[in-house]
Parts: sequence; C-alpha cells; structure tokens
Amino acid sequence: MKLSDLGEFGLIERFSGRFLENLQRGIVGIGDDAAVIPWDEGHSLLVTTDMLVEDTHFLRGAVAPRDLGFKSLAVNLSDIAAMGGMPLSFFLSLGLPPDIEVAWADGFFAGLHELAAVYGVGLLGGDTTKSLSAIVINITALGRAENRHIKLRSAAREGDVVCVTGTLGDSGAGLRLLLENSPGGGDAEALIARHNRPAPHVAEGHWLGAHDQVRAMMDVSDGIDSDLRRIIEKSNCGVDINLDKLPLSQELTRVGKLRGWDARELAATAGEDYCLLLTAAADKFPVLNKEFAARFGRSLHQIGTVTTKAGDLKYFDKGQPAVLKKAGWDHFRSGQKA
Amino acid sequence: MKLSDLGEFGLIERFSGRFLENLQRGIVGIGDDAAVIPWDEGHSLLVTTDMLVEDTHFLRGAVAPRDLGFKSLAVNLSDIAAMGGMPLSFFLSLGLPPDIEVAWADGFFAGLHELAAVYGVGLLGGDTTKSLSAIVINITALGRAENRHIKLRSAAREGDVVCVTGTLGDSGAGLRLLLENSPGGGDAEALIARHNRPAPHVAEGHWLGAHDQVRAMMDVSDGIDSDLRRIIEKSNCGVDINLDKLPLSQELTRVGKLRGWDARELAATAGEDYCLLLTAAADKFPVLNKEFAARFGRSLHQIGTVTTKAGDLKYFDKGQPAVLKKAGWDHFRSGQKA
Repeated sequence: MKLSDLGEFGLIERFSGRFLENLQRGIVGIGDDAAVIPWDEGHSLLVTTDMLVEDTHFLRGAVAPRDLGFKSLAVNLSDIAAMGGMPLSFFLSLGLPPDIEVAWADGFFAGLHELAAVYGVGLLGGDTTKSLSAIVINITALGRAENRHIKLRSAAREGDVVCVTGTLGDSGAGLRLLLENSPGGGDAEALIARHNRPAPHVAEGHWLGAHDQVRAMMDVSDGIDSDLRRIIEKSNCGVDINLDKLPLSQELTRVGKLRGWDARELAATAGEDYCLLLTAAADKFPVLNKEFAARFGRSLHQIGTVTTKAGDLKYFDKGQPAVLKKAGWDHFRSGQKA
Repeated sequence: MKLSDLGEFGLIERFSGRFLENLQRGIVGIGDDAAVIPWDEGHSLLVTTDMLVEDTHFLRGAVAPRDLGFKSLAVNLSDIAAMGGMPLSFFLSLGLPPDIEVAWADGFFAGLHELAAVYGVGLLGGDTTKSLSAIVINITALGRAENRHIKLRSAAREGDVVCVTGTLGDSGAGLRLLLENSPGGGDAEALIARHNRPAPHVAEGHWLGAHDQVRAMMDVSDGIDSDLRRIIEKSNCGVDINLDKLPLSQELTRVGKLRGWDARELAATAGEDYCLLLTAAADKFPVLNKEFAARFGRSLHQIGTVTTKAGDLKYFDKGQPAVLKKAGWDHFRSGQKA
C-alpha cells in the first residue's frame, strides 16, 4: 500500500497511538494545533511545528522570498493563537539548494524578522542544511498560555455557535490566480497577498482564549471543510454549516464573479486562511461578539451550529441541504479526500 | 553570490545577529547544541532541532527505514545530552513522496519508537506533508536540565584537557563503505551500523553535566575538526590535538588497514559520531576519568589540550606538527571548507 492510499490523516492515526501511551498528567500530545506541556502552577508551554516544502506549499518563482519568510512563521504563530496562547520564540530548520542566491536568503530572513519583531518572538536556534532540489522550511514555535485559557478542539458542545474571525477563501483564490498566472489588478493583488503573507490572528486568539464563552478553537489551515472534521472527531459532535453565511471579501466576490469561480467552494475548501475557527456558547455569543467588535473593530462571523449528530458535517444553503463539489485539503492525495 | 560561496557557518553568522537582540535574561539562543530557556527557579528547558534530507544525509536505498527513524531521533537526543540535560519529548515533521510504501513508514516509526521508548520521550506533535521527491525529516527535541549542570561551548579554559566519550571515525567509515557499495563482513557491518544507528550518549551527557570539572561540551556531529572550531570561537581559545591519541575502534583500524584508508583523517573530519566532545579542568581530570570509568565501564579519551592561542586549532602527531588533508563538514560546500 502507498501513502497516497492511506492519506495524511490515516498516516497520523496509524502511528500516533503508540506515542500517546504513558503521557504525563497535563500533557496534550498529537491532535491539536499545538502540544500542551505543564510549565508552572498556572501556565503551560505550547509547542507547534510546520513544514513547508517547495512545489507542495509554494512555488519558488511565484512567491517573493520575503513573503515566504513571513508566511513560514505566520502559520506557526497562528497555531499558538488557536490554543489561546501568546508566542514566545521559534526554531528554524532550512534546507536549501547550494545554488540559491544569498540575496534569496537575505529576503527570506528579512520577512521572518519582520513578523518576529511584531510579536517580539526570538529565533533561538535551528539547523541549516543542503537540500539537493527543493527548498524545505521547518519552524517550531513555542508559546505560553494560562492553563484556564487554553482552547482545545475537543470542547465543542451541542448548540454552540460556529464562527470564524476573518473572511474565507481569499488565500485559495490568491493561489488559483498565481497558478493560472493571471494578470494583476487591485483585487487579484490583494488576494495573492492574502495567500503569500497571511496575518496570523495572534491578538484575537489570545483574547478569545481569555473568554470562557469560547469552547473549541483551531486555525483554518486546510479549509473549514477539513478543519471542522477535526473538531467533530475530537468533540464527538456534528456541525451544520450555512454556506450562504460564509464571510467572503469584496475582492473574492468580485474576482469570483468575473472568472466564474464558485467563491463559497473556495471559502469552504481551499484553506490557508489562518483566521480562527471557534465554537462558543450560543446564549453568550451576542455579548462575546459585541466585545470582540469593540476590541477588534470587526465582528465574528457566525457560519453554523454544533449538533449532536456525531460525525456529521452538513451544509445548507438558505436553509436547504447543499453539497460541496470539492473537499478540504489532504496531503498525499492532491487535495482530494475519499 | 551563491550560498555555496558563503557556506553553512557564513549563512548562520549573516542572519543570527538580528535575532539575538533583546533576548530575555537567562536565554541562550543560536550557537550551542540546544537553546536554553528559563523554566523555573533552578531548571531550564532545552530545545534543539535537526533536519535530515534525503541524498544529503542519507540514501533511501542504503538505510533501512527503521534505522533512519532511530537515527533521526538519536541526533537530537545527542544535542540535549551535550548540554548536560535529559530529553523529555519531541516533535516530528515528515515530508514524504506520495509513492512511498506504507511499509516504509511502518519501519521508520518503529525505529523512532524504539529509541523513544529507551528514554521515555513522547512524540507530542508534528506535521506530515507531501514532498515531491526527497524524504525530509525534521525533529525538534525538548529537554530539561538543572541550571548549574548546563554545559556551553563557551566555557573552555586554558589548560583544560580535551576529550571524547567514544571512538571516532566509525560512522564516517560506515558511510564510505555504503557509498562504495562494499561487500559486508563483520567489521564492515559494525561500522555501517555505527553510521545508521548511532547511540546518543544521553546518560554520559547527563552525568558529565552534573560534574563541575567539565567545562565546555558539545556533541561530535560535523567531525572534531569542525566541532572544535565552534568551541574555539565561543571560548576564545585555541586547541592542540594529538592525532595519535584519537580513539579508533578495532573495526575501523582493521578496515582502514585493509583498504588503505587514513583512519585518523576519518576520525577527525568525517563526523556523525554522536559521542560527546568536552573540556575538563586538567588537575581534576584523573578523578573525573576514574569516576566516569566506574560509572560507564570505559574511560574518557584524552585527545588534546586547550591553549591560549585564540582561534588556533593545531594538530600534532607524536609531538610533531601535522596537517589534515580534509576538513570537517560544511553544508553547501560539499564537505570542504575554505
């Protein structure tokens, strides 16, 4: 059997069990946005790691090295935010072909440093090595959270509101524009920038972590169609999503219309949005949302509801059952899930 | 300018400075075997990360997946040991071509688990992703050490004894046998095993950390010719090495003689030995060595002396100045340093 038959989540399931035996009390291992390791009486260390491989996650010719440096760190800070924590520091492993220009590395490190400086996170170590063909970037980020603020994927409850902290599909549209080598224009540029330089919702995650009304939380990396299934598995619940409620940017709406794209499908499946996906107690949601808006100058977007139908992810369009053509991202399967 | 002109250490030097500004008190960042992050009153967290890339660090056809899993973790545990700490847990990022057999992954995880179980370190998270051609493995290991036991590269002092905790050159000889596709036999098999399944000196590192006579310490990954230069830089000292005192295994001695290899050159430059390289106060070395032998059933190998000649690494052969033909490993430069 090939890995492509097993799929990414099949691979993780196959091997994670034996490594989860005998974990110390208080440790959360594989299966959330970051691992949780007890630090002191009231705090935990958060650890997350992400690998970006050329031609899988990015095309060398389609992304400026500065943007790539920025994004490599952003996706890790997003994981720390999704747990309700604040990032502290990070570690970088970099596999580079020897014929790479030093100017490329200069750009990459400039982008990395730009985002690191925003959050005061230090690069504390790493590994540089030769890779014969592909550029490979691995970042491990450390964060810290108050124990009572940590949000896990397993905490969703029936009746919870499902919401996101930003618009969906922009990154996916940006990627599609890049792959189709489409001519620019303001909207296209904005969408491509959303793909190449995603802004992790660090302040939002930390703020949401401090609010008890928030239950399950994770970041949108594979697309909500895939990401919600992780919450469903861990919380043993179902989710109903209203496709007509998915928040779409004006740029995506306009470009989608112009090119005949199904913007809602991109919003549900393309991923790499790096906003936060959360569930919150329904009765307390209006107050939470009002406070969020007061703090961040924009509202949370309510996109669905947590149900009891364990394992079910159902889509609706204006109240009528609906079906998505594509499914969320799964590595080893070229983006298509069984 | 290409990376190959700059070299691995040039690259690190070029970018590490700006990330080392404004570090919190007590943090040791880039430049040692692991980063040191204050944990509680008397302890620190140690963090290290290593990337292994197919065709740079291993050949898919020349190493059993089980050995590769074992080695991937071993090199990280070795870094924790080199700081005087004990490993706690690790994180794995795995980039795999989709056509890899699941049996390959089974072997890899079996080897990883085999070594993890020896030291009770948990795999707490990671990332699995598609890599179009090369297998890429990145492990980040966490460890813990008492603050007063932590050994840095910067602590060598004039007059210190320089020693290693194991034989040198076996791994390099094993690699050479693999690359030359040489027929087996007991000695060759033993050397190849030293290359494919290095045993990290975890207990030794922890024990040496607890001894004040030990000053600077690191693990032998690039070969002592390269590794000693790191101690020289950080400690602002010189080192004299007696080539005739480099500890060679019987297997290496016999195979070297048979094949006409310069075993001492392999011992000094080939690297990947993953034993520990340390300096110790000369007047207290005899007692340290006696206690080490009582605890581990073998002696430390004294190979040289720390001198005041800042920046100098000098070789001697039976008291006479000597020169090495090759130099230690530097990525981006195919193993040859300027």
